[in-house]
Amino acid sequence: MGEFELIKRYFTRPSPGAVLGVGDDSAILQTAPGMQLAISTDMLIAGRHFFPDVDPYSLGHKALAVNLSDLAACGARPMAFTLALSLPSADAAWLEPFSAGLWALADAHGCELIGGDTTRGPLTLCITVFGEVPGDAKGPTRTLALLRSGAQAGDDIYVSGTLGEAALGLQHQLGRLQLDALAAAACRARLERPTPRVALGLALRGIASACADVSDGLLGDLGHILERSSVGAQLDNAAVLATCPWATSDIDAQLLHDCVLNGGDDYELVFTAAPAHAAAVAAAAHASGTPVQRIGRIDGRPGLRVLDGAGLALATSRSFDHFSQDANMQRSSAT
Amino acid sequence: MGEFELIKRYFTRPSPGAVLGVGDDSAILQTAPGMQLAISTDMLIAGRHFFPDVDPYSLGHKALAVNLSDLAACGARPMAFTLALSLPSADAAWLEPFSAGLWALADAHGCELIGGDTTRGPLTLCITVFGEVPGDAKGPTRTLALLRSGAQAGDDIYVSGTLGEAALGLQHQLGRLQLDALAAAACRARLERPTPRVALGLALRGIASACADVSDGLLGDLGHILERSSVGAQLDNAAVLATCPWATSDIDAQLLHDCVLNGGDDYELVFTAAPAHAAAVAAAAHASGTPVQRIGRIDGRPGLRVLDGAGLALATSRSFDHFSQDANMQRSSAT
Repeated sequence: MGEFELIKRYFTRPSPGAVLGVGDDSAILQTAPGMQLAISTDMLIAGRHFFPDVDPYSLGHKALAVNLSDLAACGARPMAFTLALSLPSADAAWLEPFSAGLWALADAHGCELIGGDTTRGPLTLCITVFGEVPGDAKGPTRTLALLRSGAQAGDDIYVSGTLGEAALGLQHQLGRLQLDALAAAACRARLERPTPRVALGLALRGIASACADVSDGLLGDLGHILERSSVGAQLDNAAVLATCPWATSDIDAQLLHDCVLNGGDDYELVFTAAPAHAAAVAAAAHASGTPVQRIGRIDGRPGLRVLDGAGLALATSRSFDHFSQDANMQRSSAT
Repeated sequence: MGEFELIKRYFTRPSPGAVLGVGDDSAILQTAPGMQLAISTDMLIAGRHFFPDVDPYSLGHKALAVNLSDLAACGARPMAFTLALSLPSADAAWLEPFSAGLWALADAHGCELIGGDTTRGPLTLCITVFGEVPGDAKGPTRTLALLRSGAQAGDDIYVSGTLGEAALGLQHQLGRLQLDALAAAACRARLERPTPRVALGLALRGIASACADVSDGLLGDLGHILERSSVGAQLDNAAVLATCPWATSDIDAQLLHDCVLNGGDDYELVFTAAPAHAAAVAAAAHASGTPVQRIGRIDGRPGLRVLDGAGLALATSRSFDHFSQDANMQRSSAT
């Protein structure tokens, strides 16, 4: 199978939302008047971000999911994406489930594949997604998107869904932890097929003061909000741990704590909102079918403090960094 | 150096043209009313698209140049780009010249870096570029961009600049060909620092009936125009060879012919225009400072024929394909 046949067979579908889709030198999008285009890109590398023998359907899902999660964190509505794909060979037995996983998630979000690039090489994926957010009538340099920079002292801090499951699933797969069959299946599903919180992101427009997705770990990603907003925060350790369904199991407490606070690969949203918006947050969570948990509060004192039940700060590890630490799959659980 | 320090030091600059640039979950662009966004993406892999020890400044240039060339082929004005970068380590001695080469070309085209992704892994680059083209007042599903699909029987076929030099430079580097010092330097410069024909693409809006960039070789890329336009073509072999400045040197005639017709990596524009637009094409070439050469004519008979001086069709090889043939750097010169 040649490159053009490969594109035609697995990655070409009508894209009526685009002026021009796959097949020319560029794709062409036109957004509605007064709308802005949100753009995000992520690269996934075999052996680094996923196991080389990962189920291709799951990989197709995850490659798009991690990008949709970035749009969700901005409150953007997914429109389209490009796919750059390096493959060792044009293997239909791999391409069929991979493209099926990709299309299933794309279709679920009305997100059209409008172009890309394929080449032969080590298995590597790079997706760039485009989403729409309303422009701000106050001026073309303003936006109604959810940013990392809007948190204010006194705001509540929330997180969606569950934390730590993907990291627990990875530790299990690496043989560093023995989960029971139920937990192993649940954690593996979260690791391989994360759910981008697109509907919640849309519902939080005008409500959340700041938002980010939890891709590198809660402490690290909340840290980005604190830095961009020039504020500090305190987290309620018990509330954070309660976001993990396996917190009451017999997993080593230190490992569990690290997976929940620094695990990464959760693709949940961490966001802030004024206390006056607490009911609106609950309504957004309900409307989007996404559980949301309050885990702390923004304050004016720089830094991030995780407090135990007595209000004492716990020692915590720093955020995940692709270059300062071993990357996801090789990462140790040490804090 | 950590990931965030790496981004801050080498890849963060103000991007006043964007609503939101580097540092949040997505970047946000707003195009002018009535403008469309052209989007293209390309992935470059060490050992496949470039030598692992290539001069990093040149690599920074080329990674963006190949993407700008796709915008040029659509007649789009570059606006912004994202960069996804996988690196074995955060090495300042590599990052400084790489980012300098990237910024120099970006600045020359007013193209702002608005976001991206970095990770540790095999040296791999994926750039997605965004350019503006005017919307067509006839409707939102139409465009004034240059497409591959507009060629008509009777149109002249043109190519910009020179063909075959990048391929000759590669053959020389691989030791399959001995160029003299002058030719070697010129061909190497074309291989490592191609010139995207952005100004020509802009000048050809409303004049060219179809356009593509020559990335995979003239025959292959012109073939895309023929396929998308449902037409055929005949090329004047002598005129095509005359686009290569080294055609009169003592390079093996078959190798030269193959480098010019199928060499790839030229990043010139191949385009078509009605004979009535010949003067306008010449004016566009002059205004953009880009040499343009007429090399053939579109006809209604399917297929692509390369004719010698007596009007007889020459045997030619098919187009380059990343999966059907060995990829660029390993490609043999056999037709």
